[in-house]
Amino acid sequence: MLTGRSASTPSDEGARPDVAVVGAGPIGLAVAWRCAARGLRVVVHDPASGSGASAVAAGMLSPVAEAYFGERQLTGLLLASAARWPAFAAELTEATGAELGYRTEGTLMVGLTGDDLAEARRLWAYQQGLGLPVTPLRPTELRDREPALAPRVRGGALAPTDHQVDPRLLVPALRTAARRAGAVLVPQPVRHLGEVDARVTVVAAGCGAAVLTGLPVRPVKGQILRLRAPGGVAPGFRHVIRGYADGESVYLVPRSDGEVVLGATVEERSDTTVTAGAVLRLLRAGVDLLPELAEYDLVEAVAGLRPGTPDNAPILGPLPGRPDVLAATGHHRHGIVLTPVTADLIANLVTTGVPDPLLAPFGPERFGGAGSAGVDGPGRTTEEDRWS
Amino acid sequence: MLTGRSASTPSDEGARPDVAVVGAGPIGLAVAWRCAARGLRVVVHDPASGSGASAVAAGMLSPVAEAYFGERQLTGLLLASAARWPAFAAELTEATGAELGYRTEGTLMVGLTGDDLAEARRLWAYQQGLGLPVTPLRPTELRDREPALAPRVRGGALAPTDHQVDPRLLVPALRTAARRAGAVLVPQPVRHLGEVDARVTVVAAGCGAAVLTGLPVRPVKGQILRLRAPGGVAPGFRHVIRGYADGESVYLVPRSDGEVVLGATVEERSDTTVTAGAVLRLLRAGVDLLPELAEYDLVEAVAGLRPGTPDNAPILGPLPGRPDVLAATGHHRHGIVLTPVTADLIANLVTTGVPDPLLAPFGPERFGGAGSAGVDGPGRTTEEDRWS
Repeated sequence: MLTGRSASTPSDEGARPDVAVVGAGPIGLAVAWRCAARGLRVVVHDPASGSGASAVAAGMLSPVAEAYFGERQLTGLLLASAARWPAFAAELTEATGAELGYRTEGTLMVGLTGDDLAEARRLWAYQQGLGLPVTPLRPTELRDREPALAPRVRGGALAPTDHQVDPRLLVPALRTAARRAGAVLVPQPVRHLGEVDARVTVVAAGCGAAVLTGLPVRPVKGQILRLRAPGGVAPGFRHVIRGYADGESVYLVPRSDGEVVLGATVEERSDTTVTAGAVLRLLRAGVDLLPELAEYDLVEAVAGLRPGTPDNAPILGPLPGRPDVLAATGHHRHGIVLTPVTADLIANLVTTGVPDPLLAPFGPERFGGAGSAGVDGPGRTTEEDRWS
Repeated sequence: MLTGRSASTPSDEGARPDVAVVGAGPIGLAVAWRCAARGLRVVVHDPASGSGASAVAAGMLSPVAEAYFGERQLTGLLLASAARWPAFAAELTEATGAELGYRTEGTLMVGLTGDDLAEARRLWAYQQGLGLPVTPLRPTELRDREPALAPRVRGGALAPTDHQVDPRLLVPALRTAARRAGAVLVPQPVRHLGEVDARVTVVAAGCGAAVLTGLPVRPVKGQILRLRAPGGVAPGFRHVIRGYADGESVYLVPRSDGEVVLGATVEERSDTTVTAGAVLRLLRAGVDLLPELAEYDLVEAVAGLRPGTPDNAPILGPLPGRPDVLAATGHHRHGIVLTPVTADLIANLVTTGVPDPLLAPFGPERFGGAGSAGVDGPGRTTEEDRWS
């Protein structure tokens, strides 16, 4: 591991980078920004920055609404990262002048039918049991907050501390911040880690991490729609709305410019085609919850691939037996919310060599030897030669 | 009016055109082709050939399935034009070598629910009362013909003589045919008829005819979807399917290359935005009728503007008091099927000066003086000077 500014004195110009980051999505860029800001020489490799899961992400910062059964450790990391988001966003805007679409109205969670509400209430009870701020609302309170909700919506609850950011504003801002801090972006693909020459390599390649490292990261297809309120006005609702509607789980994210992101499917597929059935299910649930959406323009239907893992939690830390290769991938549906904590913890690990206790549950070693299969595989000898 | 080849002897080269056609959609191009093939000097004006209603049209040649209550004269014209289509298509393919996607499997008309079927049966009885070939099918016969239909579909009938063509193949073929016959395409807009210098002007400008002529042509918005069977195979059904599904009327047009056109809304609006509600209604009805569509790729959602008229029938013939200006517009939902008869009748009228009896119900004069308002309006004096 490396320590502070000593690693990149002027005499090192043109020398081997301290850190090579593979992947210029939000995770890779934020890691690069944090490392470069600490004086490390950083190179980021990506032929198409921001073209992965982040281009399709809604940008919900919702550790409360997304606290699911059986994911307590993940929920802890989501909460830790969400707590860092206000300062992270302010710092990023200060560094770049960029507007990020950061909004703090909270998440309104609703159930359309009696069955939907019963399912929602089970989850809210679980979330309250964790001590999270979830406030059930009476129907009149729900309408007072969002008059545009369908009259049929049976009930809801508020998660007031959930926020949102616009990923399509976030990624360019992170590129700018990383560059201004001194990171160099190389628009070339990395086909295997032997091509990378740096003291530490951070693999933040999303789904691409699987072939690079052998880690069990798999694509999880998600389809989303982008709608736009007619007439160029803001949407007729202010909160992020997460709803169950006849068994379908959807979210609606309003942006100030009139855009609404309506998502998302979760499919064990690796193609990125938009299917009629998925669009139908999303629109039906969305319009059932918020009838005015029927009048909105449908401006985009798109599919992306999330980097999923066996336990739905990210993979953060050194590959087994390879302290010079750090994984920062597998963020699945949580890449945007987990960006600040990932960047901070990985940058700390790079500079101090000491892993933050927060990282403990998320190391690659939890998947056993499979985590280093790619590195230990056929290319190993060559890579050893270059990395030793 | 003009007669035959005498109008364009070699000594006329560079002289005033015999015929100026305003609009290079299927109607204008077919008129130009027919006129040029008779030896007339033809110029066609359009800055964006094929960008109007035809780009969104499904290409159903369905005079039987589209024989609606209260439109007997229109039905007669649709039948007359559909009867010309096989020869027209063969002639066009011979002239150009172009494949047109011409298919003859017939239309299957179905009702999803009992209410839908009751509504459909009223229409089938009307169509049979006109002597049209409509054959009710028993449920087993329906499934034998199209096993992909949803089990819930309550009943159906076959219109075996209805055909289809692909408008996106038709329009380029017509452009080629018109050019090869000698017509000149000028990619410039015509803002008023005074800009056109020809012995006869044919206004085939679709919705644009209103401002050029004052005729009561109004935009009628239609939204359609294009789906594609996964894996590059043909769709799992062969007939054009027209269905009522929970009160929604839709059609499904299968193409040999895997494409399915699913349409269409009929909206009294003049914008071309795609709305969430329309896409939802189309997909819901389509998937309810043919469940396998849920697995199809959604490759296009688009809106276009049909040139509608007060009685839903086209406007064909000379403007009142202006025998040198012929309307060939207002084809509304029937532009593709009506292309051959419109082209033949207008070309005959141009060359012989004698209107075919088929034209009688469709003249501009049926709308009274309003039909020539634009021509008689502020620009009249100038136009008279140029046209006299």
